[in-house]
Amino acid sequence: MSRYALEVQYDGSKFNGWQSQSSGRTVQNEIEKSLEVLTGERGRIVASGRTDSGVHALGQVAHFDLEKFFDLKRIVKGLNGINGRDISIKNVYKVDEDFHARFSAVSREYVYLIYNDTTPSPFLCRRALWVNKELDISYLNELASSLKGTHDFASFCKKTSSQDGTIRTLESVTFSRQDKLIYCTIRGNAFLHNMIRIIMGTLLEMHQERLPGAHLEYVLQMKNRDYAGKTAAPWGLYLKKIFYNPGLSEYMSAF
Amino acid sequence: MSRYALEVQYDGSKFNGWQSQSSGRTVQNEIEKSLEVLTGERGRIVASGRTDSGVHALGQVAHFDLEKFFDLKRIVKGLNGINGRDISIKNVYKVDEDFHARFSAVSREYVYLIYNDTTPSPFLCRRALWVNKELDISYLNELASSLKGTHDFASFCKKTSSQDGTIRTLESVTFSRQDKLIYCTIRGNAFLHNMIRIIMGTLLEMHQERLPGAHLEYVLQMKNRDYAGKTAAPWGLYLKKIFYNPGLSEYMSAF
Repeated sequence: MSRYALEVQYDGSKFNGWQSQSSGRTVQNEIEKSLEVLTGERGRIVASGRTDSGVHALGQVAHFDLEKFFDLKRIVKGLNGINGRDISIKNVYKVDEDFHARFSAVSREYVYLIYNDTTPSPFLCRRALWVNKELDISYLNELASSLKGTHDFASFCKKTSSQDGTIRTLESVTFSRQDKLIYCTIRGNAFLHNMIRIIMGTLLEMHQERLPGAHLEYVLQMKNRDYAGKTAAPWGLYLKKIFYNPGLSEYMSAF
Repeated sequence: MSRYALEVQYDGSKFNGWQSQSSGRTVQNEIEKSLEVLTGERGRIVASGRTDSGVHALGQVAHFDLEKFFDLKRIVKGLNGINGRDISIKNVYKVDEDFHARFSAVSREYVYLIYNDTTPSPFLCRRALWVNKELDISYLNELASSLKGTHDFASFCKKTSSQDGTIRTLESVTFSRQDKLIYCTIRGNAFLHNMIRIIMGTLLEMHQERLPGAHLEYVLQMKNRDYAGKTAAPWGLYLKKIFYNPGLSEYMSAF
């Protein structure tokens, strides 16, 4: 048996999220079907974590096992030839059998893309949040800084879905502007269901009402979803990079 | 009567080009219908030039007349509220009656976007040409330089469509790279039907076969479409900016 890890990008707009479900097109399903066409083996693909419907990925990582050994370049070319054009396999690695896309991951980085202009962009429809009033980046960075560190993020978690507790560590949250585009980069050890979208929704509401940072601390302390803001739309959210320790490339077996 | 000029962006993937036709969705048609809904006046919109099916626009300019005066911000907001999300009106100006989006334009700038990576990008599907072999930018720039200036571009024009003769002036053609993205910026006084797409197709074929610049001069001299390369796909082509002299803003009447 050989274990492989793949780096995959996808435009989430036309997917019902990553995870296989009883209905709707999902990224996992599409890649599993292509892999079966290519290799004749029916395998299961395990991702670093699921992404919601509409959320994009620039660097999702997933692993799978095959009985036979397949040439890595052939897997990349083969899967890209079979998958829909809104999925692209960027790399495939041969990894040790103890590599696990989810459990070996030490942190995850997401980017929320905001298009900040008075008129929308036809090119960023379903690719970015459109905010037509000018955003104050330094104020948003000031607010975001109070979320950094280890907290109970129960207020920032979709109700009915906290299996592993609600304590998480946010390593960094920073807003930066490039002309009309604002990038909010968020890195943490792991994220609760809808956590990043609820954080974004809350920060944007606080911006609109010019609430002080103390409000955010209050919301954290309440440990109740009702105190946070709306869940922001998934359109602008991209899973950017999964960090492994040691790095994914070091998992590559000498074969 | 008041004349207005609008700056419009559109994602061309789901349009049958700019110009109204007997069938298929067109940008001109969509804006004319929205304008009628908004103002109650049925007007005709005249663009700086038509764009092919699949070609995008970052800064198309078009003018139209209305009997009544309408507030400019109201036109922008109104049209953006009615149009599909793949069109965005970025600005509307009140212009003099002698302003003409096509005839007052002194030059046009296009950008061809190429995604140069071994694997495709799910985000640039229908937004860029995908070229999987590494392109040599300095060689392409060397080739392109021999196209600059005033030439008879008959070899680079779709057959059966040369009304105003085939002599045009190419002011600049330059390739530049930003990581995996290559931008080919082309500016000229006016362009023949499919001219930019045929230039791109020819340059990419010459790159593949490593033909010398002299070949391009030969193709120009033959003044026959059959000697040039294929017409490149429209996906990566963006109408970027229309230049007016005096600038569009100076046409704004004091009212």
